[in-house]
Amino acid sequence: MKKKDYEAELEPLQVELAGVARWLKHCGKRLLVILEGRDTAGKGGAIGALQDHLNPRQCRVVALPRPSDREAGQWYFQRYVPHLPAAGEIALFDRSWYNRAGVEKVMGFATPAQVEAFLVQAPIFEKLLVDDGILLFKYWLCCDQDKQEERFAERLEDPLKRWKLSPIDLEARRLYADYTDAREAMLEATHTPHAPWTLVDFNDQKRGRLILLRDLLSRLPDRDVPPPGIEFPPLDHPPLQERYGRLKPLED
Amino acid sequence: MKKKDYEAELEPLQVELAGVARWLKHCGKRLLVILEGRDTAGKGGAIGALQDHLNPRQCRVVALPRPSDREAGQWYFQRYVPHLPAAGEIALFDRSWYNRAGVEKVMGFATPAQVEAFLVQAPIFEKLLVDDGILLFKYWLCCDQDKQEERFAERLEDPLKRWKLSPIDLEARRLYADYTDAREAMLEATHTPHAPWTLVDFNDQKRGRLILLRDLLSRLPDRDVPPPGIEFPPLDHPPLQERYGRLKPLED
Amino acid sequence: MKKKDYEAELEPLQVELAGVARWLKHCGKRLLVILEGRDTAGKGGAIGALQDHLNPRQCRVVALPRPSDREAGQWYFQRYVPHLPAAGEIALFDRSWYNRAGVEKVMGFATPAQVEAFLVQAPIFEKLLVDDGILLFKYWLCCDQDKQEERFAERLEDPLKRWKLSPIDLEARRLYADYTDAREAMLEATHTPHAPWTLVDFNDQKRGRLILLRDLLSRLPDRDVPPPGIEFPPLDHPPLQERYGRLKPLED
Amino acid sequence: MKKKDYEAELEPLQVELAGVARWLKHCGKRLLVILEGRDTAGKGGAIGALQDHLNPRQCRVVALPRPSDREAGQWYFQRYVPHLPAAGEIALFDRSWYNRAGVEKVMGFATPAQVEAFLVQAPIFEKLLVDDGILLFKYWLCCDQDKQEERFAERLEDPLKRWKLSPIDLEARRLYADYTDAREAMLEATHTPHAPWTLVDFNDQKRGRLILLRDLLSRLPDRDVPPPGIEFPPLDHPPLQERYGRLKPLED
Repeated sequence: MKKKDYEAELEPLQVELAGVARWLKHCGKRLLVILEGRDTAGKGGAIGALQDHLNPRQCRVVALPRPSDREAGQWYFQRYVPHLPAAGEIALFDRSWYNRAGVEKVMGFATPAQVEAFLVQAPIFEKLLVDDGILLFKYWLCCDQDKQEERFAERLEDPLKRWKLSPIDLEARRLYADYTDAREAMLEATHTPHAPWTLVDFNDQKRGRLILLRDLLSRLPDRDVPPPGIEFPPLDHPPLQERYGRLKPLED
Repeated sequence: MKKKDYEAELEPLQVELAGVARWLKHCGKRLLVILEGRDTAGKGGAIGALQDHLNPRQCRVVALPRPSDREAGQWYFQRYVPHLPAAGEIALFDRSWYNRAGVEKVMGFATPAQVEAFLVQAPIFEKLLVDDGILLFKYWLCCDQDKQEERFAERLEDPLKRWKLSPIDLEARRLYADYTDAREAMLEATHTPHAPWTLVDFNDQKRGRLILLRDLLSRLPDRDVPPPGIEFPPLDHPPLQERYGRLKPLED
Repeated sequence: MKKKDYEAELEPLQVELAGVARWLKHCGKRLLVILEGRDTAGKGGAIGALQDHLNPRQCRVVALPRPSDREAGQWYFQRYVPHLPAAGEIALFDRSWYNRAGVEKVMGFATPAQVEAFLVQAPIFEKLLVDDGILLFKYWLCCDQDKQEERFAERLEDPLKRWKLSPIDLEARRLYADYTDAREAMLEATHTPHAPWTLVDFNDQKRGRLILLRDLLSRLPDRDVPPPGIEFPPLDHPPLQERYGRLKPLED
Repeated sequence: MKKKDYEAELEPLQVELAGVARWLKHCGKRLLVILEGRDTAGKGGAIGALQDHLNPRQCRVVALPRPSDREAGQWYFQRYVPHLPAAGEIALFDRSWYNRAGVEKVMGFATPAQVEAFLVQAPIFEKLLVDDGILLFKYWLCCDQDKQEERFAERLEDPLKRWKLSPIDLEARRLYADYTDAREAMLEATHTPHAPWTLVDFNDQKRGRLILLRDLLSRLPDRDVPPPGIEFPPLDHPPLQERYGRLKPLED
């Protein structure tokens, strides 16, 4: 998809999302969007499209580091709970508790018993959140291995994307099919009526973002909260200029 | 400045910043960038330019909400401290403890005694951080009132920017000169050798971002930490495709 | 019960509890004890008996203040979750999420719908914790109103206990029967096989503490982890004395 | 000192402390008491004497575990700051940031440069807190080695105190004189007019607690905030009794 077309389609969706944000704040509703998916599928870009025009005091991206030793000895969901949205807030989870059913399972970082326990607990935990009124959406971003190969190669070349690569990605390539299996097992256990998954084809990332955003908007309740009316009376003096005493600004 | 020229100049700076991020991680250094400035100057856009190609697990934007009642009764700096960067991390503060010397002072949300106490404490607090090895940079983004007027008008019109407007902005217009005075008093007290301010002219926001980023990069120590070598052996099978059992992906 | 008899019976129980603490640490188990009950029944004293000889780095008392505005707009259990015990730890909850089914219900601080939702969620939430391996015990401390009257009167008189009284206690007296009803409704909904309640008669507080402690110990699994062997070789010099340079110690 | 005499002297001091607590709450003042000292001197007992009759929602004991890896890479004071008291609160620090000048220095857990940096930063950090209005008191509890030997022996014997012993204590015995030297260096650097140390002789622990408490009370400003007047009207019915439906209470 061409950038120009993409941007033309994206903007009205982002305008609608800005309306959703206003509505959330007005009603004290909470929105939680989980983004998971195939390595290189495009979680980061999708999050960018979502948060780009939202108030950073309302919309937070949650990308947790590895658990500390102490966290590793706690209830598995414990370290995620403080990051759930409060009234009026949006939380975008860049990866989430589903690590356990994906990378941790495939790479052997969690035991089969831990994975099993997780798959039992996740739907119950999510039901508590949903019943409490949190609007929860779970997206899994898909892409085929040829696209993944292209993107790995691009990350190797592009110094702006180089940080996205780590030795673990070598394994992700080798274990492509295992990740598929893990996803299917995860869907089997956690694609529930109260917290269904949505898979989105991200072989074309721009198209993927539009599909995701459109889907999210279509599933949020109707709302129409006009922004508070503000009127700017004319200044009663010519516009002022910055005036510098102590320090001059850097210029070119 | 034209978008095309801007992007052409921006990219090499972001590549250099990616190198800085690698160096920070490698040495366990901590980077703290404070962004303050005139309303509408362009803090959000500058933060975007900084964080755009950084790992969200390494680089966090800190945009704190209003203090709770309990926080309001604590040491003024207390609620900011948990957000200081840990080893290898970058924290971008979208506003900061300097609220007290800016909006809180001008709008009367803090008493003159509180502002005075803040101006005494801030340099001392910052010296503790800097002496501990935190790399601290403080930017104040400037713009003249005619530009501010344009941008307020744009925010009123543009539904993607409408959230940036609040009734308090009416006051910001009326009190343009008071904000200038407050900034000068703040510089007088807190432009220190260990934690100097840098003012950047953001009358042209794109140019402002480039100046800021260039300045930041020029003041960081030399570093050259190549990314870890990774080689992708060819796949020993044709690239796989996503295979869907439980659920099909959304497509257009 | 006489103080002397009480202390004679208490000590061996506390010794056994010290063994439990060693076992918890050794196995990385987590112990969570919730103490609820009639106003004046003696939660504080019971907690004292439990924590008195435990390592404060292992055993924490959790007595949360009122929720902040932001917390009030979160998932009801959210503010409690960070205080759940980590591996090897003991958490003693002085009141808990059951506030909602007790004081908040009786005093009208929560709506009937909120209370209802809580009574549905609590057993599910607790099952998640128990299934995760947390050892959860819930005690409700009972006392008759004549005892309560005596204790209120004592609190009014005794300056060391005066802080325990607040105007809300006037209501607690008037609403004694409502609290009983609320407790019964709570038991109906939350006395579950995985997280049963234990009621303890605290008309005699010393006896109550012994009963509670004995019950808790009887329900913990067998364990026998001897403390690590330590041997103190004799000092190879006469015992040293404090030596004061800069400052002398306060003495009588 | 005899237990009976001790208790007779302790009680009026605790009554006075209860008055201080009321005053703190009334004025929104903050009290921070740091307890440091020779191993076995009696920090735990002193804390018990202080907190025994205070509201656990107002007075917290802060006994932090070892820093996590992430915390170890932060500003040294960072992990302590969230535990500073808020308005109306009391925080009792069972050990504190002074670990760095004591155990970490003597045992070699911190480098000489880190210790040196700490000794420079601590007074500055504390001045920020004191200037902000926090009432800060620092006590160092002293005892001679013969007493220490007795107490180590007692800890080895007494199963209720066994947890207080760890292999590190073997070193504490061997390094008694080094700890003295470390304390003197610490006093030299951090016994300041704004945050002076008080040494208390804890060779007799009961006497030590009384001295400490008396000293603390003598240095707090005058206050006289009577508790809020509460009157209990007579019940208009005979006192009620607990009534059990779902579950009977445990009795002996």
